[in-house]
Amino acid sequence: MHEEQRQRAHDLLRERKIDRALFTSPASVTWLTGFAPPVQTGPNPFAGGPPLVWYAGGGWTLIVLDGHAEPAAASGCPVVSYLGYSIAAPIDGHRHLLAALRQVVGGTGAQQIGVEQHDLPHYLRAALPASAALIALDGLLIPLRMVKTAEELVKLRANFALTDAGLAAARAAVRPGSTELDVWAALEHAILKAAGQRVPIGNDCTVGRRAHHGGGPLDVTILPGDSFVVDLSTRLAGYWSDSCATYYAGEPSARQVAMHHTVSEALDLAISLVRPGATASAIDREVRAFMAAAGYPVYSHHTGHGVGVTGHEEPRIVPYNDLTLAAGMVIMVEPGIYLPDETAIRLEDALLVTERGAEVLTTHDKRMK
Amino acid sequence: MHEEQRQRAHDLLRERKIDRALFTSPASVTWLTGFAPPVQTGPNPFAGGPPLVWYAGGGWTLIVLDGHAEPAAASGCPVVSYLGYSIAAPIDGHRHLLAALRQVVGGTGAQQIGVEQHDLPHYLRAALPASAALIALDGLLIPLRMVKTAEELVKLRANFALTDAGLAAARAAVRPGSTELDVWAALEHAILKAAGQRVPIGNDCTVGRRAHHGGGPLDVTILPGDSFVVDLSTRLAGYWSDSCATYYAGEPSARQVAMHHTVSEALDLAISLVRPGATASAIDREVRAFMAAAGYPVYSHHTGHGVGVTGHEEPRIVPYNDLTLAAGMVIMVEPGIYLPDETAIRLEDALLVTERGAEVLTTHDKRMK
Repeated sequence: MHEEQRQRAHDLLRERKIDRALFTSPASVTWLTGFAPPVQTGPNPFAGGPPLVWYAGGGWTLIVLDGHAEPAAASGCPVVSYLGYSIAAPIDGHRHLLAALRQVVGGTGAQQIGVEQHDLPHYLRAALPASAALIALDGLLIPLRMVKTAEELVKLRANFALTDAGLAAARAAVRPGSTELDVWAALEHAILKAAGQRVPIGNDCTVGRRAHHGGGPLDVTILPGDSFVVDLSTRLAGYWSDSCATYYAGEPSARQVAMHHTVSEALDLAISLVRPGATASAIDREVRAFMAAAGYPVYSHHTGHGVGVTGHEEPRIVPYNDLTLAAGMVIMVEPGIYLPDETAIRLEDALLVTERGAEVLTTHDKRMK
Repeated sequence: MHEEQRQRAHDLLRERKIDRALFTSPASVTWLTGFAPPVQTGPNPFAGGPPLVWYAGGGWTLIVLDGHAEPAAASGCPVVSYLGYSIAAPIDGHRHLLAALRQVVGGTGAQQIGVEQHDLPHYLRAALPASAALIALDGLLIPLRMVKTAEELVKLRANFALTDAGLAAARAAVRPGSTELDVWAALEHAILKAAGQRVPIGNDCTVGRRAHHGGGPLDVTILPGDSFVVDLSTRLAGYWSDSCATYYAGEPSARQVAMHHTVSEALDLAISLVRPGATASAIDREVRAFMAAAGYPVYSHHTGHGVGVTGHEEPRIVPYNDLTLAAGMVIMVEPGIYLPDETAIRLEDALLVTERGAEVLTTHDKRMK
């Protein structure tokens, strides 16, 4: 799994003349190996830190908590695991992870070691030779992550099918008298069924009048005439999807109809602008200009962003970003209109950049009714 | 919020003659301040690292991502926040967090600084004076966390009401023909309603025949005669609950009736043994001995564990642990019987240690029918 990612990273490390490196960022580890530990209940109380990837002379070793050795093995990398939970001794994942890393690094006489320092727990520095200079590799892999491999596209497509299922359930559940939490429960059940397992789910599920704040569902009753914004992310096999639609409780007002039409046109415009060679900032500028010309307040968030092992990554479709799109990138576009304490509408699709323009990966129904 | 925790930590630091310290463990930060960032969708792509607490001369400062400044302020500590998400510049939470920490630490001439090194991102070492020796404080607060404050008990009680609600819904949802995922959806909806918001939810929801593996719900259909193990943890206001019950799809067999009776007696035994002065290992030994004497395989997991800002902490009720219980501790006890690929039963309650013995904090119905 993920051989192509490791090849890309290997080529870059060789170019940089780095032959020993430690990857510590959860995003890097998932991208290099396909392994993604559970996140939904926060830090694992038995772990000594995040999973690690050690690179030495072209080889890759994955270091994980013992309970994760089996899923980690699917990476195709050698896996070294360390003791976490035990009833025979005090929990001491830190000591065991340090020992495991020491063993993997071995007695290398390397004079320099590349290290992602942002996510390296400080105490693990002791597993690397004191005499070795640490070369910061933070962010090195981010550009390599932008163009997705065929394997990644399979994972992402399966994942967008989950948000599609969740949005269909939400669409059916939005009605006056129900609460935001009821809509969430319905969409979560649909996503569980589609995934055949629990998956992390993120983002917004709110009546339009409070959608400018964003955020999860609360015990807020849906009133007749409310718009309802559902923005869903799911993580499947380590990859994040994203998607957003807006529904209506009863008949939308004439103003909502006009707004929905404009947002839909803005989304179509964004989709039409996506092609290899297009500049992120130019897409951002055109979509914002369209919104302003239509007489609406321009949304304060990004026009879009990449997705992959994180839910928000390059290429960011934002005003400053002169990055150029290339075939194989996967980006979200999500124009919206927010009238605080009144109503809000946002529509979002996932796009695969192809030589012929954007292929829309999301299939959810974005019509008003 | 959490003044008593900070007072306990301050007293201990003073005793250790440490007047500058950096707390980096998510558990420590929540315990010291009450602040708990969301966890359900994994690491925040805009953050530079975990929230931090800086202690200097008796004062406490909380350093958080800008989007978390408002909930962090409830701690009553000064809050310093740093830039995360922006559409005006590349995401660079690491640089901003480093600058924020530098500013907070200031030009201290301290010769030694206490630091939790397990969760300190290595790159943040640069924010501490190079000349200062770092004194490892990892684990220092763990013993202080065992006896809960009145404020913590309020949070924990509210939290156990969530698992009670989830278990009641699961009890009603377990029936032949439904799936594990259906039961999960029902209990999650009940917990959302009881909490009025989304909360992280953990643990097991499986038919008894596969409960020896533990784990989340899958698309597994419940068959007549299945036992069904539901072990739930929720996090509310930064604190974790826990709780487990076993239900039956249709009529339990004579063997299941006998097993359920034995587990229920083992739970009662554990509850009766909990009092100030009792030794963790002695409780563990007695409950295991009871199970063996009843002729069943003895469960391989802990007999129990503490809960608080983590879902598994001291006092651990396990064979090696000579720790003595004290009034104010909150512990889980959870004996079980597992017949792999056949059936399983586990029952769990939360107990507050009081001078008069155990007060049971969980109220869920643990009867067979």
